[in-house]
Amino acid sequence: MGLVVQKYGGSSVADAEGIKRVAKRIVEAKKNGNQVVVVVSAMGDTTDELIDLAEQVSPMPAGREFDMLLTAGERISMALLAMAIKNLGHEAQSFTGSQAGVITDSVHNKARIIDVTPGRIRTALDEGNIAIVAGFQGVSADKKDITTLGRGGSDTTAVALAAALDAEVCEIYTDVDGVFTADPRVVKKARKIDWISFEDMLELASSGSKVLLHRCVEYARRYNIPIHVRSSFSGLKGTWVSSEPIEQGDTKVEQAIISGVAHDTSEAKITVVGVPDKPGEAAAIFRTIADAAINIDMVVQNVSAAATGLTDISFTLPKTEGRKAIDALEKNRPGIGFDSLRYDDQIGKISLVGAGMKTNPGVTAAFFEALSDAGVNIELISTSEIRISVVTRADDVPEAVRAVHSAFGLDSDSDEAVIYGGTGR
Amino acid sequence: MGLVVQKYGGSSVADAEGIKRVAKRIVEAKKNGNQVVVVVSAMGDTTDELIDLAEQVSPMPAGREFDMLLTAGERISMALLAMAIKNLGHEAQSFTGSQAGVITDSVHNKARIIDVTPGRIRTALDEGNIAIVAGFQGVSADKKDITTLGRGGSDTTAVALAAALDAEVCEIYTDVDGVFTADPRVVKKARKIDWISFEDMLELASSGSKVLLHRCVEYARRYNIPIHVRSSFSGLKGTWVSSEPIEQGDTKVEQAIISGVAHDTSEAKITVVGVPDKPGEAAAIFRTIADAAINIDMVVQNVSAAATGLTDISFTLPKTEGRKAIDALEKNRPGIGFDSLRYDDQIGKISLVGAGMKTNPGVTAAFFEALSDAGVNIELISTSEIRISVVTRADDVPEAVRAVHSAFGLDSDSDEAVIYGGTGR
Repeated sequence: MGLVVQKYGGSSVADAEGIKRVAKRIVEAKKNGNQVVVVVSAMGDTTDELIDLAEQVSPMPAGREFDMLLTAGERISMALLAMAIKNLGHEAQSFTGSQAGVITDSVHNKARIIDVTPGRIRTALDEGNIAIVAGFQGVSADKKDITTLGRGGSDTTAVALAAALDAEVCEIYTDVDGVFTADPRVVKKARKIDWISFEDMLELASSGSKVLLHRCVEYARRYNIPIHVRSSFSGLKGTWVSSEPIEQGDTKVEQAIISGVAHDTSEAKITVVGVPDKPGEAAAIFRTIADAAINIDMVVQNVSAAATGLTDISFTLPKTEGRKAIDALEKNRPGIGFDSLRYDDQIGKISLVGAGMKTNPGVTAAFFEALSDAGVNIELISTSEIRISVVTRADDVPEAVRAVHSAFGLDSDSDEAVIYGGTGR
Repeated sequence: MGLVVQKYGGSSVADAEGIKRVAKRIVEAKKNGNQVVVVVSAMGDTTDELIDLAEQVSPMPAGREFDMLLTAGERISMALLAMAIKNLGHEAQSFTGSQAGVITDSVHNKARIIDVTPGRIRTALDEGNIAIVAGFQGVSADKKDITTLGRGGSDTTAVALAAALDAEVCEIYTDVDGVFTADPRVVKKARKIDWISFEDMLELASSGSKVLLHRCVEYARRYNIPIHVRSSFSGLKGTWVSSEPIEQGDTKVEQAIISGVAHDTSEAKITVVGVPDKPGEAAAIFRTIADAAINIDMVVQNVSAAATGLTDISFTLPKTEGRKAIDALEKNRPGIGFDSLRYDDQIGKISLVGAGMKTNPGVTAAFFEALSDAGVNIELISTSEIRISVVTRADDVPEAVRAVHSAFGLDSDSDEAVIYGGTGR
């Protein structure tokens, strides 16, 4: 065997019992002959409690100090986990992000990893230790300040360490059994996916699937690190995310045509009404949005009404950025030139993801038919090579997801995924 | 003005309100034109909570991991304090012990500071920041592991930083008004001491006074850093600890003959009964104790009984070490040769401290007279140049302390400290 990186989330180490349970699982991996590196998040609600304390002393906590504060959470969980492992008779040492060589840029609260220099981890492993590393945190290259990586940062820590240590696999332990063909809370018949390609996982992640964050999968793809997403509670095999299908027992897992259906109700839609239909107008709008540091998702421009020479431009963005975007556009209204703004946060997005749609014509048609049969009205459409997304009313999302999931043969009681005939998508 | 180091204990920053109150006090010092370095302990009960967590996962937490765990406490308080200061419109940055350059040996849980390289603190100060430093912690010189300094370690951090930064004063903020002539919980008429020499403070600290620990005072004396012990709640002037009396307004504080009366009921007495009165016997006993890494305090050997050629040797040691000492002696009984061991943990020690006793004969006589008048029986006696200590029954300690305090004119309603005549002490 080789080197395994395991990552445990906050719900897996929420209390002393959880820590002891996780310690046993880690020791099992070690007993199987692996070198084991463990990345751990803060215990359960620790981070929320620290944020609450920060808000009590300052309405706008400074980034540097906020990061210093939050990183106390992983420091506690990693030290306790190392103690629990040693209590089982195995050697373990805990390391902060800084000690583990996780080097980041200087953007506090959402730093990006720019290098990993895991010399101390390597030494600890060579000396027979299980290495426990604080997730979610690093140290800035220029100022040597403590940084945090933002939401889902511990997964990225795990993948980055796996890459730097040339690990065989990065196991992400969580409170679900793996990646599903749809959110099981919405689709009761959702199936656990045995294997999914990096590309499909990236599309699912950017379409609302929350099991793995886009940044983490992107990192894994770049360094070709297989990820195994699995439950820290059940011990079942989970979902493999990798470049090539993995062997499962005697059979080789095949690439599915459709990997899954994702949905997202965290976005809002802004429509800029009465924009002159001339070159540079769209650029002026999106420059304004970009200057406000707001990421947008889908963009649609209506066909211009010939009589007026005016058109409407709609785009979607995180609801949390809605106020900022409206303010920025209003402020630049003289420069852009438009009649009015419409803001709509009662929208939802449904996305069908699967590399198979590149070679299986008719997927798009079947997708729209399924939505139509379910009586769901489509407001916006966007596509990539392996994804189709539509915006609908937020209320329609659960029914739309179930209809699409069923139409593409993804339900757990379906015999086989459906193959489509027809021409083009 | 110059550079001031302030230290705030856990009770001063027990909650968000405490942190905000302390932040205001720090900002005042900054507004007075000082460069300000603040050393802070963990909030209130945080350390106890972390110890409790550790005990839940492991009955014998490893030193390295235990230190990693405990240092999360100061990380939280220092980040919150920096936020609170910034919220008042002043610049502040927090630093871990490691970042502040507190270099220690590798003895986990009770490391000693061996060097301080405060380059980052100096830079932060020069850039106009208030520097907040985690107390109680450092980084080991050889392994670069996180260490803690043991009980009272934050005071030592403050004094060590004050020395390394050549501070004008190290202000120790606590929940009492300063150093008193006796423990105010025992002696209602105890007086706050305006100034006390390092030497007298060292004797008080090693005789049971808990306001400052011996190690911290020793460090301050070595580098000649004046300490100002004061309340973080009252804002009153506290007690100055320094080599020379400080000016207080128009008058120069004089050296008191007697600084105070300390007591200690944390020790036990072991008597080794029936030891052959020949060379090497005492050495064998105390080598046994030393090999068990136990520090002893007072030692008394009885006059040998001529008939038997046997004697008894008594010594005092921390109660917490009692079991270990008994076991070590029993184990080596064949080598040492003694009849039996007697263990007594119902003892107390009363100490009178004051450099004035060097030049004022009669202090010892007056001390014993006071005890005698109070009906207190003396079991052991030990002296240094500026201290007399006696061991009594633990039950007698409060009355004995009050009697001695009163006899030496230390009571707050006394006009003047008493000067003694007579010959010798």
